[in-house]
Amino acid sequence: MTARDQRTQVGAAAPRGTSEFFTVKTVSEALTGFRPERRTPVESVGLHDALGRVPAEPVSAPHALPGFARATVDGFAVRAADTYGASEGLPSYLDLAGEAPMGRAPETEVRQGTAVAIATGAPLPPGADAVLKIEHTQAATPELLEVLRPATPGEGMVRADEDAAPGDELVRPGRPLRAQDLGMLAAAGIVELAVHGRPRVSIVSTGDELVSADAPEALPVGQVRDSSAPALAALVREAGGEPSFAGIVPDNREALTEKLREALNLKGQTPLRVVEGLLPECDILVVSAGSSVGSRDETAAAIAALGEPGIWCHGLAFKPGKPTLLADCGGVPVIGLPGNPRSALVVFRLIGVPIVRLVGGCTDPWPEPSVRARLARDLPSAAGRLDVVQVRLDGDDAEPLFGSSSLLSILTAADGYVVVPEAATGLAAGSDVEVMLYR
Amino acid sequence: MTARDQRTQVGAAAPRGTSEFFTVKTVSEALTGFRPERRTPVESVGLHDALGRVPAEPVSAPHALPGFARATVDGFAVRAADTYGASEGLPSYLDLAGEAPMGRAPETEVRQGTAVAIATGAPLPPGADAVLKIEHTQAATPELLEVLRPATPGEGMVRADEDAAPGDELVRPGRPLRAQDLGMLAAAGIVELAVHGRPRVSIVSTGDELVSADAPEALPVGQVRDSSAPALAALVREAGGEPSFAGIVPDNREALTEKLREALNLKGQTPLRVVEGLLPECDILVVSAGSSVGSRDETAAAIAALGEPGIWCHGLAFKPGKPTLLADCGGVPVIGLPGNPRSALVVFRLIGVPIVRLVGGCTDPWPEPSVRARLARDLPSAAGRLDVVQVRLDGDDAEPLFGSSSLLSILTAADGYVVVPEAATGLAAGSDVEVMLYR
Repeated sequence: MTARDQRTQVGAAAPRGTSEFFTVKTVSEALTGFRPERRTPVESVGLHDALGRVPAEPVSAPHALPGFARATVDGFAVRAADTYGASEGLPSYLDLAGEAPMGRAPETEVRQGTAVAIATGAPLPPGADAVLKIEHTQAATPELLEVLRPATPGEGMVRADEDAAPGDELVRPGRPLRAQDLGMLAAAGIVELAVHGRPRVSIVSTGDELVSADAPEALPVGQVRDSSAPALAALVREAGGEPSFAGIVPDNREALTEKLREALNLKGQTPLRVVEGLLPECDILVVSAGSSVGSRDETAAAIAALGEPGIWCHGLAFKPGKPTLLADCGGVPVIGLPGNPRSALVVFRLIGVPIVRLVGGCTDPWPEPSVRARLARDLPSAAGRLDVVQVRLDGDDAEPLFGSSSLLSILTAADGYVVVPEAATGLAAGSDVEVMLYR
Repeated sequence: MTARDQRTQVGAAAPRGTSEFFTVKTVSEALTGFRPERRTPVESVGLHDALGRVPAEPVSAPHALPGFARATVDGFAVRAADTYGASEGLPSYLDLAGEAPMGRAPETEVRQGTAVAIATGAPLPPGADAVLKIEHTQAATPELLEVLRPATPGEGMVRADEDAAPGDELVRPGRPLRAQDLGMLAAAGIVELAVHGRPRVSIVSTGDELVSADAPEALPVGQVRDSSAPALAALVREAGGEPSFAGIVPDNREALTEKLREALNLKGQTPLRVVEGLLPECDILVVSAGSSVGSRDETAAAIAALGEPGIWCHGLAFKPGKPTLLADCGGVPVIGLPGNPRSALVVFRLIGVPIVRLVGGCTDPWPEPSVRARLARDLPSAAGRLDVVQVRLDGDDAEPLFGSSSLLSILTAADGYVVVPEAATGLAAGSDVEVMLYR
């Protein structure tokens, strides 16, 4: 774009900063209303690579777990009824009838009046319904056990199906797997399972002023390195996706349109339709705009030029994220981000991450980590607009960090952020706030 | 071990369940006192693989960021003094002197009484000290700008060093990198940095009753699959380590000693010393004990048999984690875990994860995610003992989950856990508690 074009745009296209946004939505509307149907294909993954992956179907216990009644203390397998009334002053006496072995079926039965020595984890011998802790017994003779306290049925043991009954749901589809879920699957002998593929997220950066992060150290005045793309890629990874860089394109509608066609594998096709055998290169397309008003407009125009673009919104009632674009291009969600690096990261965390998760089959994510804190200063905000304000935590205090939305240093200094909801006109100092944590 | 041996052990080695623990410590003592000196070697990593990695040294800004004064709004670069007193009723007038281009040095200066059109992100022309938002102006003629509000110096722009001054610390050693940190490094042109290597954590499982998770579906009574190892491996990954499985060994001192020697690369050497050119196979060794009292004792005995083992503690005042062993074997921290799967995971999360982080150079971890909640039931606890109790969150309520420490289902059903500190004798229902989140 020439300086002349740009001037025209500044003066004409956005005379009061509003006409450029033809479909402004609230953040809540975007989160509930823009729900792409696209899902990644299901693939099989081994247990050791399954941490954080999203099961595609429920997994049930193929049999009871642990599978046999087990001692949970070291002591003696008994019939609880044989110990009723026992006390230190008036012990009961049981005949010692051997030991329950570890790792194989018991050889000895517990008959009335007898006890069998057992270690934690060993299978309960037939006839026993409790395990007396060794501390509650005393050896009278090598063959005779003194019982100093009564046992109740079920004490000191777990049932054969206490961890899971056959058919119990072990993992839920749509919910990322945690360490303990892998343990449970291992216990059930499930070492491979069906999960959603990682969404492939292609990141296009636009802007006449942008150069790659690995550009030589001294840049001419006016150029800046593309800081958003690597940070967005990291957020994609955190959300379970697989990022790729499609490169930097100048603020030029034709170049951007061509780049988008390439990413969507739509070369030469109009109208925009997913064609059999011609799959898009990505599951989600992110356009990280240059910071000029020009490049913002170019993103929308380029998407419009693709054919039948479903631009769902162009503009969010969101600070700092007003110039956000959401579209569906032939079944691929497209997220157009503001040019300011801080805004881009804030928008992508709030709007993009849930989309990456959803496309990756994660319909039931774990809650975002947060802490409660006391707001250290007033936060003014316009009603009807959602504000995200970075904060630094100092004990129980949340200290807001203010500054231009172009500054990354606000994000790197922050421990998390506070949301001023759309309905509020601000939050007063001293308010109890939820700080969403960056980590 | 024969059934006879085991019987003897149950009856003799642990007559009151205490003599087996010769060095019992509190959890706080373990966390502050057992601080291995071992650190992984420093390696170089590219920015795109640096998420969550731990910088080994501070990284400073090589130059100012963004590097030049930039507009942060779309509008007009001005001298603020030229706009003083301007209002809708009594506008000021400035001569339009061209446009500031995007991505290169400005060609036009802002002289007294003039304004230069500028878009967000473009470098500020010389002479200008503020950018008037387009909304606060009006075009009187194509050459004349009507100013409807005054600008203050610095408004609508960022300084050349506002994101970082030359030499400012961009990332801190010992603190894992987040998405925004990668953005800041990219902005500074730093695309490769020195980080600590991932700690190699070797996991040995012991127990006569244990079989591998991929054992055929129907197990004989008495056998259980090794559920702890895959879950521990996942926790190692979350802590930034690289897990490996050293296999399952029976409850046999010689077999375990041999396995430990192998993992520590100490074949045939006594006393235990790190020998030049003979490095251990791992940075941390985890022994996940079988659940029998026998295997617990065997772990300690096997470590003692290695030569000059520094057993730091054998027993923690911790429920469910009493039979925990911490040792230093020739510079490699060794963590002996309880046999019950739930206990093993709870101990490893509380004690093992900080050790993995520390060995991996992470001296300044981000806080663990937590939420505040109201305890739904009384939690009794013994004074002097730390209790970890799993809870399920139901709105603001934390509902404790009770059951045997052998049950993994308690962990899979939990959203997080509550700590009853050593000094407390319990927590009353209705207490405000901090729930540490599992995710």
